[in-house]
Amino acid sequence: MSKLRVAVLGAKGRIGSEAVRAVEAADDMELVAALGRGDKLETLAETGAQVVVELTNPASVMGNLDFCVRHGIHAVVGTTGWTDERLAHLRTSLDASPTTGGEAPTPSTGVLIAPNFSIGAVLTMKFAAQAARYFESVEVVELHHPNKADAPSGTATRTAQLIAAARAEAGCAPQPDATVTALDGARGADVDGVPVHAVRLRGLLAHQEVLLGGEGETLTIRHDSLHHSSFMPGILLGVRRVVTTPGLTFGLEHFLDLG
Amino acid sequence: MSKLRVAVLGAKGRIGSEAVRAVEAADDMELVAALGRGDKLETLAETGAQVVVELTNPASVMGNLDFCVRHGIHAVVGTTGWTDERLAHLRTSLDASPTTGGEAPTPSTGVLIAPNFSIGAVLTMKFAAQAARYFESVEVVELHHPNKADAPSGTATRTAQLIAAARAEAGCAPQPDATVTALDGARGADVDGVPVHAVRLRGLLAHQEVLLGGEGETLTIRHDSLHHSSFMPGILLGVRRVVTTPGLTFGLEHFLDLG
Amino acid sequence: MSKLRVAVLGAKGRIGSEAVRAVEAADDMELVAALGRGDKLETLAETGAQVVVELTNPASVMGNLDFCVRHGIHAVVGTTGWTDERLAHLRTSLDASPTTGGEAPTPSTGVLIAPNFSIGAVLTMKFAAQAARYFESVEVVELHHPNKADAPSGTATRTAQLIAAARAEAGCAPQPDATVTALDGARGADVDGVPVHAVRLRGLLAHQEVLLGGEGETLTIRHDSLHHSSFMPGILLGVRRVVTTPGLTFGLEHFLDLG
Amino acid sequence: MSKLRVAVLGAKGRIGSEAVRAVEAADDMELVAALGRGDKLETLAETGAQVVVELTNPASVMGNLDFCVRHGIHAVVGTTGWTDERLAHLRTSLDASPTTGGEAPTPSTGVLIAPNFSIGAVLTMKFAAQAARYFESVEVVELHHPNKADAPSGTATRTAQLIAAARAEAGCAPQPDATVTALDGARGADVDGVPVHAVRLRGLLAHQEVLLGGEGETLTIRHDSLHHSSFMPGILLGVRRVVTTPGLTFGLEHFLDLG
Repeated sequence: MSKLRVAVLGAKGRIGSEAVRAVEAADDMELVAALGRGDKLETLAETGAQVVVELTNPASVMGNLDFCVRHGIHAVVGTTGWTDERLAHLRTSLDASPTTGGEAPTPSTGVLIAPNFSIGAVLTMKFAAQAARYFESVEVVELHHPNKADAPSGTATRTAQLIAAARAEAGCAPQPDATVTALDGARGADVDGVPVHAVRLRGLLAHQEVLLGGEGETLTIRHDSLHHSSFMPGILLGVRRVVTTPGLTFGLEHFLDLG
Repeated sequence: MSKLRVAVLGAKGRIGSEAVRAVEAADDMELVAALGRGDKLETLAETGAQVVVELTNPASVMGNLDFCVRHGIHAVVGTTGWTDERLAHLRTSLDASPTTGGEAPTPSTGVLIAPNFSIGAVLTMKFAAQAARYFESVEVVELHHPNKADAPSGTATRTAQLIAAARAEAGCAPQPDATVTALDGARGADVDGVPVHAVRLRGLLAHQEVLLGGEGETLTIRHDSLHHSSFMPGILLGVRRVVTTPGLTFGLEHFLDLG
Repeated sequence: MSKLRVAVLGAKGRIGSEAVRAVEAADDMELVAALGRGDKLETLAETGAQVVVELTNPASVMGNLDFCVRHGIHAVVGTTGWTDERLAHLRTSLDASPTTGGEAPTPSTGVLIAPNFSIGAVLTMKFAAQAARYFESVEVVELHHPNKADAPSGTATRTAQLIAAARAEAGCAPQPDATVTALDGARGADVDGVPVHAVRLRGLLAHQEVLLGGEGETLTIRHDSLHHSSFMPGILLGVRRVVTTPGLTFGLEHFLDLG
Repeated sequence: MSKLRVAVLGAKGRIGSEAVRAVEAADDMELVAALGRGDKLETLAETGAQVVVELTNPASVMGNLDFCVRHGIHAVVGTTGWTDERLAHLRTSLDASPTTGGEAPTPSTGVLIAPNFSIGAVLTMKFAAQAARYFESVEVVELHHPNKADAPSGTATRTAQLIAAARAEAGCAPQPDATVTALDGARGADVDGVPVHAVRLRGLLAHQEVLLGGEGETLTIRHDSLHHSSFMPGILLGVRRVVTTPGLTFGLEHFLDLG
């Protein structure tokens, strides 16, 4: 089997350099380019890159993706800063991208944008949302290093929102809570009715626990991120799947087989 | 909305008496009969029971279900001891059960048999099997009270088998393990390649943890069963869904919406 | 060896009836009386009780202890509502209690008052306070059933206070926390500088986790109370030790050998 | 206050280079020498080092310590390979080390040898041994990366031995365990009667959990080591305390105030 020809954009960054190593180490991939600031995009076409891993910054990502889509190069994107306008623009360019021939030509280029490439984080959110309707109580505890500036974490807030949406759709009753007297803050932050607690502890990196409780039992889903290398399996998975998934996909969860 | 007419068989047992209370407490159900050893099955027909919760024993269950199926009464079954022969017999009687009228009459009676009515336990197995292919390492730790006679628990063994099957289907590599010198038993029991560890501790009831580990991250799914009342939400869910699910369903997971 | 003659006051209550069973089941004890509301205290003297387990209520406890101390009966007390005045009164009566004979007669009656008879809870507080000075960060997460009226729990508040006092005594720096933007309540309640988070979840009873974090490592001490029978080992330990510990002892931790 | 003059031996190693940085970052210390293979020990005397952090190897450590003791330089030693003979030799040289003047001259040089400088690991062992006698059941679960060659870890084995010794001394009954049928290995390795389970999971570093269970409650003490920088606070603590602790001290626990 011939190897997938992969290029990394933003190859000098912390995640980018890790991605370079991960692609090199993957048996089924060949690293054909590792571009940093100032390098020319033409290299991508010249080296015959089939998939680009885009790990630059919001100022560069649109130009980079325009180039890729025009040249029929698939992209796996970790860069943030996506707005509805940007997504609409990207969809338009994808519609005009090179097509497979045949009677009903369709755009064949695929782009995966993922806010989080950690498979563990994505599964935690997915499972939490699926389970939430079957339990009376759900709370989120996230734990991070004490240098973090925001509380709760974006991931915890997003998780709580997904949980709340799933419960609303299923018509769940509000969570039971008989608290009458409480110290300020004791019951956590309220995110759409889901209590979220943020712990800041030296020694930790990034951790999240979703606690679900029903009559006589609890279910706990915990994700521990111990190193940013945890993004690599998700990036490689994205590379392998994006080549057969034309159009725009938002969120790594769509590439996970959870049947 | 009229209430579901529900009867409990085995109503004097530990789980059965709990089921009686749970049905009585449910807004959308009416308890029409609570039968114990020696009570007549005819009562089910006389009271117009629509669903029976069958919590007796392997010696009684087949007769009870024959009666139900013949009378078009749906059944939710927690009794154990199912063999291929018994399941085949039950399917045959279901095929001959009263049908909905119309041009293409189909058997309308539904039977749900569930080895485990704890929604938390069922979700743990489901999620573990779904996640297993995305992590290099998976191990199971189950923890129970020290009066338990078997190790590991049936649930832990079943969970490990489901994990192993999912990994085999996805073509996962064997789990990494560089152990060269080990004390006997240190690495747990081997269930189809998945290490399973059994802890026995005074004070515990029934708990299970599935640990999944990949590059830089771990995902932990933990189920704590603190009281056998944990079966009640699953039994009530079964009662509500079995009336619109003709034929035989094996396993509560088929009644959970995990879309 | 002759058995300790033990009486239970408040024997009809939830904890009291459990204590009756625990004393009966203990090899080295004999239950000589189990008194409820309206029963006469004289029974204690008549039956030759050596130790009384006092599990009544704030309105009765002082009278009961006065009787015990006057008759040289040791007491293990779980009743709450202790004030400085009450403790001072009790100390005074103990000073006048029957003495051992000899040249330097000393009061021989012992009274143990314990706000918490769970050995696990007591050890959690003790260990947390001991460890707190060696870690940069300490937070407390308590988890209870959703019918609880106060948040955080009294035990969690007390634990945080002990931690804060130990850190102050050791001259620890304030905990690191770079939080700039936070949702209200996300960082928990502040108890003397120690963040305390309260989770309320159906299915839980009473649980507490102390998280300590330093450079590259964390230490977690977790107590799970799954049944109020957890008070029994502490009560029995108190009974065995109070007979050789004259005077007033406040807190079960003084009876634990932590050398 | 003048700063402690500290030298590091083995300064090029993984832990050594970390120790160099930690000493440099400590407000109350001054790094006066950082010696690697081939550097001369005389530097220690010339630079006026008061404390040496010894992180070399079993072949070098005895010579290094002989030099330190002869010159009245205190030492904090992380190098392994200690035998009874080596310890006896070291004690003899310490007896002959420079003394404080005065009428009752005593050796003033101190040496701390610690098999583990992680304060969290040391406290886990200490607390586990203290608590073990108060619970019917105790088991150890250790979790490491899958490249580890031995199972269980040395720390887990040592922890189980300390637990077993404490229980023996307190006259505890054997642990309850009604297991009749078990898969091979399910109940873990037996270390002096304490079951020890070893989990190997990609993504983990070094973790240990001691589970203690009694009537109605459990106590869990968990240590997570996420980076080898976790040794630094213990090394710095050793440096600060060894200067006022003449003679040989074995084990960091002796320098922790657990009053």
